[in-house]
Amino acid sequence: MKNSFGTHVTVTLFGESHGDAIGAVVDGFAPGIPVDTDFIASQLSLRRAVGKIGTARREADPFQIISGVFQGKTTGTPLCIIIPNEDTRSGDYDQLRRIPRPGHADYTAWCKYHGYQDHRGGGHFSGRLTAALVAVGAVAISALREKGIVIGTHIARCGGISDRAFGDDLLSDLTRLNSSAFAVLDSDVKRAMVQRIEQAAAEGDSVGGVLETAVTGLPGGVGEPWFDTAEGLLSHALFSIPAVKGVEFGDGFGMADGRGSTCNDAFSVENGSVFTLTNHNGGVNGGISNGMPLLIRCAVKPTPSIFKEQQSVDLERMENVSLRLQGRHDPAIVHRARVVVDSMTALTLCDLLAGRFGADYLGGK
Amino acid sequence: MKNSFGTHVTVTLFGESHGDAIGAVVDGFAPGIPVDTDFIASQLSLRRAVGKIGTARREADPFQIISGVFQGKTTGTPLCIIIPNEDTRSGDYDQLRRIPRPGHADYTAWCKYHGYQDHRGGGHFSGRLTAALVAVGAVAISALREKGIVIGTHIARCGGISDRAFGDDLLSDLTRLNSSAFAVLDSDVKRAMVQRIEQAAAEGDSVGGVLETAVTGLPGGVGEPWFDTAEGLLSHALFSIPAVKGVEFGDGFGMADGRGSTCNDAFSVENGSVFTLTNHNGGVNGGISNGMPLLIRCAVKPTPSIFKEQQSVDLERMENVSLRLQGRHDPAIVHRARVVVDSMTALTLCDLLAGRFGADYLGGK
Amino acid sequence: MKNSFGTHVTVTLFGESHGDAIGAVVDGFAPGIPVDTDFIASQLSLRRAVGKIGTARREADPFQIISGVFQGKTTGTPLCIIIPNEDTRSGDYDQLRRIPRPGHADYTAWCKYHGYQDHRGGGHFSGRLTAALVAVGAVAISALREKGIVIGTHIARCGGISDRAFGDDLLSDLTRLNSSAFAVLDSDVKRAMVQRIEQAAAEGDSVGGVLETAVTGLPGGVGEPWFDTAEGLLSHALFSIPAVKGVEFGDGFGMADGRGSTCNDAFSVENGSVFTLTNHNGGVNGGISNGMPLLIRCAVKPTPSIFKEQQSVDLERMENVSLRLQGRHDPAIVHRARVVVDSMTALTLCDLLAGRFGADYLGGK
Amino acid sequence: MKNSFGTHVTVTLFGESHGDAIGAVVDGFAPGIPVDTDFIASQLSLRRAVGKIGTARREADPFQIISGVFQGKTTGTPLCIIIPNEDTRSGDYDQLRRIPRPGHADYTAWCKYHGYQDHRGGGHFSGRLTAALVAVGAVAISALREKGIVIGTHIARCGGISDRAFGDDLLSDLTRLNSSAFAVLDSDVKRAMVQRIEQAAAEGDSVGGVLETAVTGLPGGVGEPWFDTAEGLLSHALFSIPAVKGVEFGDGFGMADGRGSTCNDAFSVENGSVFTLTNHNGGVNGGISNGMPLLIRCAVKPTPSIFKEQQSVDLERMENVSLRLQGRHDPAIVHRARVVVDSMTALTLCDLLAGRFGADYLGGK
Repeated sequence: MKNSFGTHVTVTLFGESHGDAIGAVVDGFAPGIPVDTDFIASQLSLRRAVGKIGTARREADPFQIISGVFQGKTTGTPLCIIIPNEDTRSGDYDQLRRIPRPGHADYTAWCKYHGYQDHRGGGHFSGRLTAALVAVGAVAISALREKGIVIGTHIARCGGISDRAFGDDLLSDLTRLNSSAFAVLDSDVKRAMVQRIEQAAAEGDSVGGVLETAVTGLPGGVGEPWFDTAEGLLSHALFSIPAVKGVEFGDGFGMADGRGSTCNDAFSVENGSVFTLTNHNGGVNGGISNGMPLLIRCAVKPTPSIFKEQQSVDLERMENVSLRLQGRHDPAIVHRARVVVDSMTALTLCDLLAGRFGADYLGGK
Repeated sequence: MKNSFGTHVTVTLFGESHGDAIGAVVDGFAPGIPVDTDFIASQLSLRRAVGKIGTARREADPFQIISGVFQGKTTGTPLCIIIPNEDTRSGDYDQLRRIPRPGHADYTAWCKYHGYQDHRGGGHFSGRLTAALVAVGAVAISALREKGIVIGTHIARCGGISDRAFGDDLLSDLTRLNSSAFAVLDSDVKRAMVQRIEQAAAEGDSVGGVLETAVTGLPGGVGEPWFDTAEGLLSHALFSIPAVKGVEFGDGFGMADGRGSTCNDAFSVENGSVFTLTNHNGGVNGGISNGMPLLIRCAVKPTPSIFKEQQSVDLERMENVSLRLQGRHDPAIVHRARVVVDSMTALTLCDLLAGRFGADYLGGK
Repeated sequence: MKNSFGTHVTVTLFGESHGDAIGAVVDGFAPGIPVDTDFIASQLSLRRAVGKIGTARREADPFQIISGVFQGKTTGTPLCIIIPNEDTRSGDYDQLRRIPRPGHADYTAWCKYHGYQDHRGGGHFSGRLTAALVAVGAVAISALREKGIVIGTHIARCGGISDRAFGDDLLSDLTRLNSSAFAVLDSDVKRAMVQRIEQAAAEGDSVGGVLETAVTGLPGGVGEPWFDTAEGLLSHALFSIPAVKGVEFGDGFGMADGRGSTCNDAFSVENGSVFTLTNHNGGVNGGISNGMPLLIRCAVKPTPSIFKEQQSVDLERMENVSLRLQGRHDPAIVHRARVVVDSMTALTLCDLLAGRFGADYLGGK
Repeated sequence: MKNSFGTHVTVTLFGESHGDAIGAVVDGFAPGIPVDTDFIASQLSLRRAVGKIGTARREADPFQIISGVFQGKTTGTPLCIIIPNEDTRSGDYDQLRRIPRPGHADYTAWCKYHGYQDHRGGGHFSGRLTAALVAVGAVAISALREKGIVIGTHIARCGGISDRAFGDDLLSDLTRLNSSAFAVLDSDVKRAMVQRIEQAAAEGDSVGGVLETAVTGLPGGVGEPWFDTAEGLLSHALFSIPAVKGVEFGDGFGMADGRGSTCNDAFSVENGSVFTLTNHNGGVNGGISNGMPLLIRCAVKPTPSIFKEQQSVDLERMENVSLRLQGRHDPAIVHRARVVVDSMTALTLCDLLAGRFGADYLGGK
């Protein structure tokens, strides 16, 4: 299925960085979900660059809803949003036709598409396409919120600096994150992180980080083992975000050094409702949600576009060359990727919930 | 698709721990792949318990090839292998009908299947079902080997002890692992790891670990962005293995603290062949293989079956109870899971390769 | 997906005519559907040959439920049924290894599987495999019946003789069909049809027919345009039945010569319930059910196994040869295929309903 | 999958008749297929109305290729084409919000989408959306032609008048059809058919017909039994075309009255190439192509938009009303649908071929 994801709620992504437009189609949204264009715009603005630490490319993201919305609500038929490409400077990328950038998809796209791919600005593999995911993801986030399911992501680590962990009042933490342009829980660490990013930028380099996501309000019983587990589907979706190189749930890799007695989450019941006393398993047992908050962490590698000299090859002449990138590039994307993580998480949960509870579950009826 | 995985080569899993049999169907294997029943048996034996550190349940795994093999080779039509269940003692699990074991799927299955699930021995969610994946995975491993693609997994960490990293002669490392019952590269660490496992067992507890997998010989250009990336599909497959709570590629979470200049893999060309000078990205750029070895790490949580007293709930009476497991359980599964990781990796790569190069690619013609 | 059908309720088929067993896995049945083994056996007996007009092969069809049923009800996890192959006489088919039978899949399987296919008795392409579809289809039929959805098929035409059309009391017609071994509405035509079949048999020839299916009780709003329409999915499923060469809904090909004014079904409302005054469209408008009975007709070609001399080729020597079949073959399959049509229709409707109303809809909760 | 079709080459359809635009995305086209915009335009013009017998709505169909084409060739990444909607007069449809048109999807969409659907002009269910299928189908047709696979469809019957059958020089027949605006083989019948259409129009009524399609050059061995047979997939695709109510292959329903001896196609070999002496089975045995021409017939019902008074219901007041349509409507669509049939056939064959021979098969490498 390649550029489509999801069985019941399916997102299909298309476009190239320097083509006419990028866009996404979502098929399977229940009829009657309110579509708030201001919220879509606000989510897109979270994805855009912030001041000095972002790319200089101006992306106003003037999205256009092509189909699937009528009188402010989803129709239940495919919702298509496109975002025209503007302010593209293809000339910047001319040398990249033959010389792949280390860490990017240039070389692997050349292997797979035999040179027919649109190389300009990374073409179909540009991070630019995540804007379309964010636009349709905003509708998914709205649909979930109507059911009391709230998603939020913070920059748990960036440039070697850690944010504080999620607190006991998780919903309040999530609410706060969702209104922050730079998503940290401890506002003091923002300055330090930005400083590290700026420092890397000054050196022509870039930094990575870790994004931590929590989801509250997801009922138990969601996930389709053996293969379409909550973890399997979410990781599948999250690894599609460029630069994500690791995904873990709950204590994740930290459990490798634990004991069963320190990793099991004991059950308890109160007022007829079952919960676990700890949440080492991140809300998922056996691939199915248990009603506790989902906890997900994604490793985001440093953006591969750096301005230091790098070794590459000329694929036509088959000779070694040295490459120095020009143009505008982010010294970090972790702070921009957080809203993409929220979007892919939301789309995946909509898919699971529609499969579990039927096509109308998330809608107006 | 729930219990099926893969688009071109699709594995479907069925069975319960204490039912008649477990089994798997693989649809999409090319015609003409040699099926070596000794190799299947040998892979199954790697999955079984080893001496004192394994479960006491005797699983002879006398598998039966029901369909899809004719005169020693795959026919190209669905291959079904079943493994009858023997030596089951369902009485051991009677108390678990109402009282879920912490860390297991008992409670979440109850949420999802409303009590209709077969609870005996974990039913459909038992690790026992991985035997069927290993049986059909053995055919996938054979098919890949014919194309020069070799997979191997070592216990990179267990009970707090680390194995050495993969060395320069990767193929030799993999060959060695694939003939080891306890898959470590540094034979000296085996004793220490086993000791830790035994110690945990003596305390009624269990340990976790990290499995590291390498794949050599995979050509560049394999992976289907945006969504069916090599990383997305592999993680999806690997998270279906019970106890896997984290998956990373290349330097994975380690890249979060890196710089672009330390994480990018520079390209070089020699004798008309392009490669990278380092492999921080684990053989994948932009979700597509680049011809370098795939490097994957899975976090395996400590087996949740422990003999210490744990808190749980009686789901019928809705009251807190304390639970002490009886019966036979593994104090670690990381050393058994390695062959399941190999199997799921092989099945996923067969799927990607069949989609890329056609239905006959991995077969006799 | 090849040997799997359905998105929410998925049937996977495996086996060869002369292998160990044939079988099917259904994934996605809701938990809590009663599984009546007597009804499965009775459906299987409807598929078997009847007296002189059937094949001489004795197929007792002693099916075995391998998984997915616990305490008489579906668990919600994959249900696997296998039917061991008995009374196979592979020697009968030896000449067919190189010489394809006209009208069968022998030659096309040879094109596709390069000679690796199991040729014995048609191998994977034998009509024998429909027994597995009937076995799992019986569970689907039971699940639908609990919701008031009833399916039945009659032999609308066979050997040039027509049965009467469905009458006004459709449910009574369906009930009657479902208890008949030879499914005709007008019991007088049975004798004539059987006579035609016997006459063809006596001449070493075979006859075809038309099966007409009706479904009552299906609610409106079921079907997923544009592509997963009720008609598209049902036809997809029905064309998988060997010998089906045409599928039509409502007046079907008869509408080609009609006028809009004679083909449109006018709406009417009575007691708050909308219905159509006629049913030319067979219960489907725009690919979505409208609450009226589904009406489906399948063209069944004469069974291609005849005892007359036929021209064929020797695929190894690449020369023309003449072929005269030996062994046991049906002079007609239309009367046996009716229960396969019911089964595939039921499985397809379960799939559509589970997608529409959720995974639990057809089950015990 | 609803609005997506195909496993390897997947078309996703979106849009509403009176929304901003309609469009389609095709994912899985091989890289390097030449994209001829003139051919796309010419195919779109075949779909448009012809003179008096078409709708009065002017549809210039100024399509826009949004993605997936670079320097005149497919890139291998998703190809999106949109066609803006112009000349829409939504006012014409106001009464239809509550009063469904007999024979249309209005009522069933209301059942399924609970009134949230865009009702204007049939919304998502308008035949208008077939323009997007024709646009992307043109690329599929081009890709197949490069491999020597040619598709063509004629109006085998319309308004009770039959065209002549395909002749011995099939390729010449197809070539002729593909350059005809009104696709008949016998040019004399055109006048008679048009007369019948005009006569129906004059009476405020409409006519139906039968479309017959042939495909030459398709190699043997294409089709994926049991379920993704050539017939199953093609019928699935063709039933998605509005107004198609029957699909048959080869002699289809005509075989129901035949004998095995008159329906089997005997094999013969000449110059090392196997073929059948007749083609009753329409190029498919056991669901797999046999190298002979595919022969497909679709029943097309009379367009349901007629100007006679019809009975319907007011869905809000739940009372019977009489309905008389206003506006512009086709008295026949069979002559316009032929290019939609070609397009869906082409997309389906691309899908099957890509699965069989790999992702690059139909492209430039």
